[in-house]
Amino acid sequence: MRVALLGFGSVGRGVARMLSEKDLPLTLTALADSKGGIIDPEGISIPEAFSRKEKSGSCGRPKVSALDIVESDAYDVLVEVTPTNVDTGEPALTHIRKALGLGRHVVTSNKGPIALAHRELTELAARQGVALRYEATVCGAIPIIHTLQHGLLGNTVAALFGVMNGTCNYILTRMEDEGLTYDQALGEAQEMGYAEKDPTYDVKGLDAALKLVILANTVWGMDAKLRDVQVTGIDRITPEAIRLAVDAETAIRLIGEAVPSRDLLRVSPRILPRNHPLLVEGTLNAVTVVTDMAGELTFIGKGAGSIETASAVIGDLLSIREMYAGRP
Amino acid sequence: MRVALLGFGSVGRGVARMLSEKDLPLTLTALADSKGGIIDPEGISIPEAFSRKEKSGSCGRPKVSALDIVESDAYDVLVEVTPTNVDTGEPALTHIRKALGLGRHVVTSNKGPIALAHRELTELAARQGVALRYEATVCGAIPIIHTLQHGLLGNTVAALFGVMNGTCNYILTRMEDEGLTYDQALGEAQEMGYAEKDPTYDVKGLDAALKLVILANTVWGMDAKLRDVQVTGIDRITPEAIRLAVDAETAIRLIGEAVPSRDLLRVSPRILPRNHPLLVEGTLNAVTVVTDMAGELTFIGKGAGSIETASAVIGDLLSIREMYAGRP
Repeated sequence: MRVALLGFGSVGRGVARMLSEKDLPLTLTALADSKGGIIDPEGISIPEAFSRKEKSGSCGRPKVSALDIVESDAYDVLVEVTPTNVDTGEPALTHIRKALGLGRHVVTSNKGPIALAHRELTELAARQGVALRYEATVCGAIPIIHTLQHGLLGNTVAALFGVMNGTCNYILTRMEDEGLTYDQALGEAQEMGYAEKDPTYDVKGLDAALKLVILANTVWGMDAKLRDVQVTGIDRITPEAIRLAVDAETAIRLIGEAVPSRDLLRVSPRILPRNHPLLVEGTLNAVTVVTDMAGELTFIGKGAGSIETASAVIGDLLSIREMYAGRP
Repeated sequence: MRVALLGFGSVGRGVARMLSEKDLPLTLTALADSKGGIIDPEGISIPEAFSRKEKSGSCGRPKVSALDIVESDAYDVLVEVTPTNVDTGEPALTHIRKALGLGRHVVTSNKGPIALAHRELTELAARQGVALRYEATVCGAIPIIHTLQHGLLGNTVAALFGVMNGTCNYILTRMEDEGLTYDQALGEAQEMGYAEKDPTYDVKGLDAALKLVILANTVWGMDAKLRDVQVTGIDRITPEAIRLAVDAETAIRLIGEAVPSRDLLRVSPRILPRNHPLLVEGTLNAVTVVTDMAGELTFIGKGAGSIETASAVIGDLLSIREMYAGRP
């Protein structure tokens, strides 16, 4: 299967590294970042792309753009891992629309286009008879979307709950374990590389809300948007609140909840009993799904990281190959 | 897809109930228990089968045997949920061999044949170009086999660990929470229906060991048998040991471990720190897989129950339909 990879940041480099190191039935035939691209039907040398990136600042050449690649015949599956824009979804949204329009499969880690245009894109993919996969948009390495779409066939999902942002979970865990203030724990998270310099997107709950929207739209075919989620972040949680929770053998976590029967889409700090499966530590993510047959199932794993996110992208690629290349 | 169901105990009845209550693209065309069977190409009336079972002791008629059904043309997929025999695998092993030999798909909850003859049966299925699925043999409603085979494609699994027996977990949790002795907690588990009258198979670790063998053979293509597992049960754990663990902010659980690089297949009571994801309560099961890309992932859910196990069987049926009936 011929793969075109757009984006050479943390996720793109992770995917490229795995394609280069692992013996997979996938050939990288096109590659671009924002400054340039390269097409090679014989397969791109990934070590050379890394060294070009280091020397020239781009993994490709300035004459070839991401859009040139999307419109080319050089690939079977587009892997869209350019930076997320949550307001417009661009440029990823255009890339994905065009690739699906040309009858190519798409795999993305890009929350923007999936949260903004899930219905339009899934309908387009269905009309074209191709796959649109986006496991990497939600909870990093946890194969939650695959499980909801293929692992629990026959089940009806009544609700889902989750710790969907590792940055917030790290901050809350550190406040709890060490008695730190919010600002101290945030500073530590920034030093460790778990929080951005401007942490708004994470600590205000927006990242978790986007993931909740993607999951809800996926599971229930809803057309929810970010504005439909009631969002409260963690930035006003005091050490006193944390201590009270601990004294009561509970803990505070930022929980995303989707319960369609109650029209509920909410991200907010919640109190969990100490032995609750969602009560994970550090940067972990966890999702509980409530189903009619399988009961409650909880999935725990790393919510971020270059190779962990690449795992989700590569899982999607191989799953498309398995489903579309005939019988397993 | 036409389904033949062999076995009308707890799992079989759960599957039949779900086929009857849910609007699924599956038609039950044959059904048998140990006393009789019935074939109807138009689809069997499931309420009538339940009432026959109640009145006559069999869901079918004495003239039709399970073997007659296996050898008939009445089905596309055999669902084998007769009682498990861990020594011979019979009669399930014969049923499964014959159905695969006739080019039919097989779904089973039956640990005996899968633990005894995994390699033979998977090779036979592959030669015949059909599916052999056995999600329901391991950890009830948790779709762990689907996840290992399809949800984490591209990953290499280095090790797996799990709480694989709900009876033992219930007993240990009750000893821990209430300071009960082993005998008291076992008695309670028997009263609640979580433990058999003869609890040997569960409390000596044999059930967990069988599941470990099935998982190891599935993930690594091993040909391990029950005798290859070092097994220690929970029946000698004292209240003092439990109390010491609790005092050290830890807890004791019966853990199955498979680490092929260390040639290790072991089921034994282990001490886990209080915040460990595998430290689940009551009859829950949990499995952690250690992978090269996705890192550590933990899956938690109900390990037993009629509908929970039916969930795994129906998931397998619909997954076969998805994979073999062409594109999703």
